[in-house]
Amino acid sequence: MYCCGMKRLYFDYAATTPIDARVVKAMRPFFSKKFANATALYKEGVEVKQALTDARKQVAAILNASYKEVFFTGSGTEANNLAILGVIGRYAHPHVVTTTIEHPSVLEVCKEVERRGGEVTVVPVDERGVVSARSIAESLKENTVLVSVMCANNEIGTIQPLKEIAKKIREHRKKYLHSKIVFHTDASQAANYLPLNVASLGVDLLTLDGSKIYGPKGVGMLYVKNGTDISPILFGGGQEGGIRSGTENMAGVVGFAKAFSITDESREKESKRLLVLRDMLIEKIAKAFPSSTLNGDQSERLVNNVNVCFPGVDAEFVVIKLDVEGVACSYSSSCRTLSENNRSYVLEAIGRGCCAESSLRFTLGRATTAKDIDRLMKILPRVL
Amino acid sequence: MYCCGMKRLYFDYAATTPIDARVVKAMRPFFSKKFANATALYKEGVEVKQALTDARKQVAAILNASYKEVFFTGSGTEANNLAILGVIGRYAHPHVVTTTIEHPSVLEVCKEVERRGGEVTVVPVDERGVVSARSIAESLKENTVLVSVMCANNEIGTIQPLKEIAKKIREHRKKYLHSKIVFHTDASQAANYLPLNVASLGVDLLTLDGSKIYGPKGVGMLYVKNGTDISPILFGGGQEGGIRSGTENMAGVVGFAKAFSITDESREKESKRLLVLRDMLIEKIAKAFPSSTLNGDQSERLVNNVNVCFPGVDAEFVVIKLDVEGVACSYSSSCRTLSENNRSYVLEAIGRGCCAESSLRFTLGRATTAKDIDRLMKILPRVL
Repeated sequence: MYCCGMKRLYFDYAATTPIDARVVKAMRPFFSKKFANATALYKEGVEVKQALTDARKQVAAILNASYKEVFFTGSGTEANNLAILGVIGRYAHPHVVTTTIEHPSVLEVCKEVERRGGEVTVVPVDERGVVSARSIAESLKENTVLVSVMCANNEIGTIQPLKEIAKKIREHRKKYLHSKIVFHTDASQAANYLPLNVASLGVDLLTLDGSKIYGPKGVGMLYVKNGTDISPILFGGGQEGGIRSGTENMAGVVGFAKAFSITDESREKESKRLLVLRDMLIEKIAKAFPSSTLNGDQSERLVNNVNVCFPGVDAEFVVIKLDVEGVACSYSSSCRTLSENNRSYVLEAIGRGCCAESSLRFTLGRATTAKDIDRLMKILPRVL
Repeated sequence: MYCCGMKRLYFDYAATTPIDARVVKAMRPFFSKKFANATALYKEGVEVKQALTDARKQVAAILNASYKEVFFTGSGTEANNLAILGVIGRYAHPHVVTTTIEHPSVLEVCKEVERRGGEVTVVPVDERGVVSARSIAESLKENTVLVSVMCANNEIGTIQPLKEIAKKIREHRKKYLHSKIVFHTDASQAANYLPLNVASLGVDLLTLDGSKIYGPKGVGMLYVKNGTDISPILFGGGQEGGIRSGTENMAGVVGFAKAFSITDESREKESKRLLVLRDMLIEKIAKAFPSSTLNGDQSERLVNNVNVCFPGVDAEFVVIKLDVEGVACSYSSSCRTLSENNRSYVLEAIGRGCCAESSLRFTLGRATTAKDIDRLMKILPRVL
C-alpha cells in the first residue's frame, strides 16, 4: 500500500506541469507592484508595456520570429480557436484540412467551422499514429484556406512530419497561385522537447500553452507569420494588435516567456535524459507484461510519452487503483470532450479500437527519476 | 517637481487595481503544489476540482446565485464576448439593444453582431450619462434576444437603472410570451462598490473582471442564470460545463474568488470612505477651477470616480505632465479601441463633445487617502 509520507509519483506531465520556481519569481513583481494597465500613458504603464514587449521578444527569439508576430492569448485552446476561426473568418466557403488525432481544441473548432458553413477534411493517420504528408497534399482543394496538424500528439506522443507537409503546401501554392492556404500547428505538447523554429518548420501559425511548459495556466500564445490574414475572435479594446482584446495578463505573459526560455535552454539535455527513462519504462513494461503493446510509433515519439495497451484491462479503474498506490497517471487524455465517453478517439484512429479503453498514459517530466520508474514497476504488477 | 522617493499618486483604479496580498497568498499553492489538471481522476486532480467548486460557490454566494451559474473566463472582455455572441449564436436574425456608453468589449462585439447579420440598437443616454429604462423598453422588438447595459460606466462612473430596465423587460416578456430576451450587464466597474445580487438586479447574465477588483489579471467571470440559452465561443475540451473550453486557470480562479470576497466584505465601509474623498476632490477642483465641470451625474455615480472637463485643455498632454509630477491618471479610458482617436465617445454620448479631449479621469481606490487628494490639489494648478 501507498503509505505515510512516501513521495507521490506524478506521471501526468502531458496533462499539465507545475510552475517552475524561477517562473513564479519572474511573475511576482507584476502582481501588486508593476500592476499598471499596459495601455496607460504614465510611467508605470510605459514600464509594463516595455515588459510586455520584452516578453514578446523573448518568445520570438526562440521561435526565430519577429516580436510583432507573437500574440498572447488566455490559453492554448484559445490560440487554436483563434488560428482556425480567425483564418476562416474572412471566407464564405472555407475548406479546412486536419487529422483524426488532433486535440479537441482543434477538432471541436472544426465542427464549428462546419456549423458556419465551411467544409472540413479530417485526414486519417497510419497505425503508427503519424499522418503522411502525401495524404495531406491529396486532400488540398481549391478552396482550402487552412491546414492544421499538431506538432506532437498529446495522448501517444507521436511526432508529425510538419516540414514535409509544409513543402507540399508550398508546392500547392506554386501550382495554384491564388491559393491562400495557411499552415497551423498546435505545438503545445512539443514545446519542451522539439526545436520550434517556425521558419524551418514552415508554419504560418503556431500554438503554445503556458500550462504545458512549466509556466502559468491561463496564458497561451499564437505565432502569426507576418502577412497572414487573420481576424479576431474576441472583440474589445484592441489589445494584442487588435487580434486579441482584453487587459493584458502581465504576470501570465512574463511567466510564459520565462517558462518558454527555461524549457528551451534545457531542452537538449532534458530530452536526452528523458529518452533514457522513457525507453527504460517501455522496456520494463514490455518485459513484465508480455501481452502489452506500445501505442504509437516508438521512434517518432516525444521523449516523455509512454502509452501502453494492456489487453482486457479497464484503464479507468486502473488509474483509480494506481492513485491509491500513490501514482498519478491517466488513460487517454485529460482533455476529453463532454460528448465523449471514456474511449480514446486517438487509439481508434490508429486502428486500436480494442485498446481504446485498456490503455494507460504515463508522461514523464523534470522531476521524474530512474527510481520513480523502478517504484512504478513495483506497483504496476500489483495493480494490473 | 516630483522628486526623490516621494510616493507616486495612483489615481487610475478604474484602469486596473493591484492584487491584494491576501489574494496572492490564496493563489500561491496553485502555482507549483496544487498544480494538477482539474479534470484528472487521481487525488491531486480531485482536490483541484474541489477547489474550483469552492471558488464557484464563494462567488455564487455573493451574487445570490447557484455555483452552477458561475462560469470562469480569461477576462471581463471574454465574458462580455461570450454573453453577446453566445446568446445571438442560435438566432438567424437577432436584435440586440445596448447603450452609447458601453465598454468597447460590448460595443465592438455589437459590431460583430452586425457583421454576422444581426441588428443592433444603440440607445442614447441623457446628459447625466444615464440611460432611461423607458428608452430601452421602447427599443425592444419582436426579434430582440439580448439587452446589454453596463452596471456602471468606466469613464464617468454613472450608475445605470438596471432594476427598472429588468422590470421593463419582464413586462415585455409578459406581453410577448414567445420573447426570449436575455438581460446582460457588465458589472466590472461596479463590483467594488455596488451590491450585485443578481436576483434583485433582475439580470440573466453578469460580467466581472479580476483585474478591477484587486484580483489577478487574465481571469473574468460570467454569471449565467439557469435556463439561459447560451452557446460557447471557444471550443475544445468542454471545461466550464461546455461553455468555455481550456485548462482551468486554477490560481486565477481561486484568486478571483478571494478578491471578490474581500471586496464584498469591505464594500460598505470602503464605499463610505471613498464617497467622502470623491466629493472632497470634486469640490476642491470646482473651487480651484471655476470653469471646470463634472462629467456625468454626481449622485448616480460610483464613489471612486471623478471625471472633470477643463475647457480648452489638452488632456493627453496634461496626463503626461501630471506623470512627471508623480500623478498617474487618465483621460477618457484605458480601453480605447484601435480605430479611435483620443476623443472620448462617452463624453460625446452625453453631449459634451467639446470636453471629449479636455477631460481628466481620477479614479480612487483602497490606498487613496485625504492626504493624496491634498497633494493632487497642489500639483494640479501648477500643471493646468
